[in-house]
Amino acid sequence: MPSLQIMGQAAKVAARQLANLSTRQKNRALLAMAAELERNAAAILIANQEDVERGRTDGLSEALLDRLTLNESRLAALIADTRRVVDLPDPVGEEFAARQLPNGLRLSKRRIPIGVLAVIYEARPNVTIDIATLSLKTGNAVILRGGSETRHSNIALVAVIQQALEKQGLPAAAVQAITDPDRALVRELLRLDEYVDMLIPRGGAELHRLCRQESSIPVITGGIGICHIFVDETADQAKALAIIENSKVQRPSVCNALDTLLVHEKIAAEFLPAAAARLAQHQVELRAAAAALEILQKGEYHEWVRPAGPDDFDQEWLALILGVKVVAGLDEAIEHIHRHSTEHSDAILTNDWTNATRFVNEINASAVFVNASTRFNDGGQFGLGAEVAVSTQKLHARGPMGLTELTTYKWVCLGDGHVRP
Amino acid sequence: MPSLQIMGQAAKVAARQLANLSTRQKNRALLAMAAELERNAAAILIANQEDVERGRTDGLSEALLDRLTLNESRLAALIADTRRVVDLPDPVGEEFAARQLPNGLRLSKRRIPIGVLAVIYEARPNVTIDIATLSLKTGNAVILRGGSETRHSNIALVAVIQQALEKQGLPAAAVQAITDPDRALVRELLRLDEYVDMLIPRGGAELHRLCRQESSIPVITGGIGICHIFVDETADQAKALAIIENSKVQRPSVCNALDTLLVHEKIAAEFLPAAAARLAQHQVELRAAAAALEILQKGEYHEWVRPAGPDDFDQEWLALILGVKVVAGLDEAIEHIHRHSTEHSDAILTNDWTNATRFVNEINASAVFVNASTRFNDGGQFGLGAEVAVSTQKLHARGPMGLTELTTYKWVCLGDGHVRP
Repeated sequence: MPSLQIMGQAAKVAARQLANLSTRQKNRALLAMAAELERNAAAILIANQEDVERGRTDGLSEALLDRLTLNESRLAALIADTRRVVDLPDPVGEEFAARQLPNGLRLSKRRIPIGVLAVIYEARPNVTIDIATLSLKTGNAVILRGGSETRHSNIALVAVIQQALEKQGLPAAAVQAITDPDRALVRELLRLDEYVDMLIPRGGAELHRLCRQESSIPVITGGIGICHIFVDETADQAKALAIIENSKVQRPSVCNALDTLLVHEKIAAEFLPAAAARLAQHQVELRAAAAALEILQKGEYHEWVRPAGPDDFDQEWLALILGVKVVAGLDEAIEHIHRHSTEHSDAILTNDWTNATRFVNEINASAVFVNASTRFNDGGQFGLGAEVAVSTQKLHARGPMGLTELTTYKWVCLGDGHVRP
Repeated sequence: MPSLQIMGQAAKVAARQLANLSTRQKNRALLAMAAELERNAAAILIANQEDVERGRTDGLSEALLDRLTLNESRLAALIADTRRVVDLPDPVGEEFAARQLPNGLRLSKRRIPIGVLAVIYEARPNVTIDIATLSLKTGNAVILRGGSETRHSNIALVAVIQQALEKQGLPAAAVQAITDPDRALVRELLRLDEYVDMLIPRGGAELHRLCRQESSIPVITGGIGICHIFVDETADQAKALAIIENSKVQRPSVCNALDTLLVHEKIAAEFLPAAAARLAQHQVELRAAAAALEILQKGEYHEWVRPAGPDDFDQEWLALILGVKVVAGLDEAIEHIHRHSTEHSDAILTNDWTNATRFVNEINASAVFVNASTRFNDGGQFGLGAEVAVSTQKLHARGPMGLTELTTYKWVCLGDGHVRP
């Protein structure tokens, strides 16, 4: 593997070339990439098998092994995703906020690629294809750093992608991977601000902290959600149960899954046992604060209930566990959320206009929901067509990031000898 | 002065309150602030006088002393600026990208304040009023760190501003200043990511580098411009001379002033002496690369010409100095700019459609100009009504940042029992 300096330089050169491709040229490259991946499917699956076997020897959990595994149908689905991105509108080149200034200067903003992206992610080879696809569509070069467990898969995938790019007359350095598992390279990558314009860490809280603390490249942090639902006194309880079930159990391992349930004290005695019954069907363990515990321990599903520990309301569970707390009303719910939320996805279930309005005004999660599941905070669900990450930071982008969020803009100012007075 | 931790906490609490003020309440606070500054003008000027005297004793340059000095008319102008911001549209609360999803969910983005800003700046007390005004208008709390030379001025200004806020029932912590000159506090501020959402360094390259390297808070870098003008073969030479003169001499100490002049070889023999004559009227020293040097040394204004040193094309001059180089044509001009530009402001002067188009496409400065002065890259000139900074980074904002760039957004998703299928 070349040094990171060399990779950074090559990426920057590639980015200049990518920035001036037409949408048609980029789409052609995406189709070539899809075809090349198809043609090399056997070799890719063999490389992946090597990773899986090594992972099994190394004692990876079944869940991790599953994430790591490619098979024919999964690979086909990924390739189909790449082809679908061809049909998405290309944000690059869009001219917006165009106007004529009083002095006759014509001014507009033009959307352009960001330049060179770096993405650090876990042991998921699908992310390699996914990010390569979205970067290419938006004319960005990308440096990938996948988990060491996917090393062979990533070497195979990137080789195939580079082959496709070169056959199209495009620079192989448009998509590069750091395949050396040395962890010191991550820290080196974080200081590569001379070449890399944006860093996206995908993975756990620890990686995000490292990037925030150490990176000299602008970082997009996100993907970590301590998500809340507050069930207000006036909520439609049948709908509330369905939303809570959906938010918690549909896919508990993801960032927009529910972590904490707050219930208005006036309905707690009625609602909590019903919620426990519904969630017990899915083996959800409840971690209940005092008042909730008292109600739930008396109920039929008490074996699913445990007292909440001191940190249990600061947990992103990523599992079939749910914090439960009774609150005096909206004020306490908002206060709890302000103290514990990661500002990812928070919801109120209510029929009270004033409370819904206050919740939407006062809660500043990347997505705030009224009477809907937190699971909707997702690029696909929000109709973006693609998702790069879910940002919970304040700058550049918040919530699901689609193709547009992989672009920036420049001002274009056209004159005829204009000077500033 | 309280500890930075305490200041950060207080700012975060204040930010919550500011975020829910109506435009009318914020405007009322701005008017109160203006009135309070007027009422306390004498005390402010006395405090400023103390800074100026100390600065003079410490041997500050006349230019710095001038930047540091407030007087009645300057203070009145600053107060008038604050009142003008009242009339600017408030970006907070704007609902955009609203749509109904196929499943009936109503989705929109709502513009909200960023939260807590931190601004590090030089010895310019005007920035204190300016940033306090723009932060308040956008519902952000702000922690200011001005140059130690303005310590007394800033203590006085912030005390007056806080008094005005408190009289309006608003938290004083909406505007706080780090007035302890200990430089270690800057590094401490850079790690205050628990409370601060965005850091804006205003000042030299060294401060920007420090912030990029050390800050765990997202940083907006910018304000440093190595700016280029390329005079193409077909340029209208009379207009070109006026644009170059304007770009270089109108205000040489600012970031959008011209640093390097590139001239097409076919017109160099005719154009360069004319440019030298025009610039000599303003005492501009020319640092000329070989071919340009040969032409200029033969001319009437040769005493203003020196050979360019090895780093002279990587200088932001901020002074009456200009790098000059003859290039073979557009390709070499673009290459030079790619190698040396800070992507702030670059211009082409040409009558050639293809060359203008290529320049606009291939140069990715925050603002790219055709036949206009680089001095237009400015919030006021671009009609933003206010300017916080000129960003040259790729994320969040590029070029002049106005009020909107001090905001972020949240997604608001309204349902009726919606669950994700």
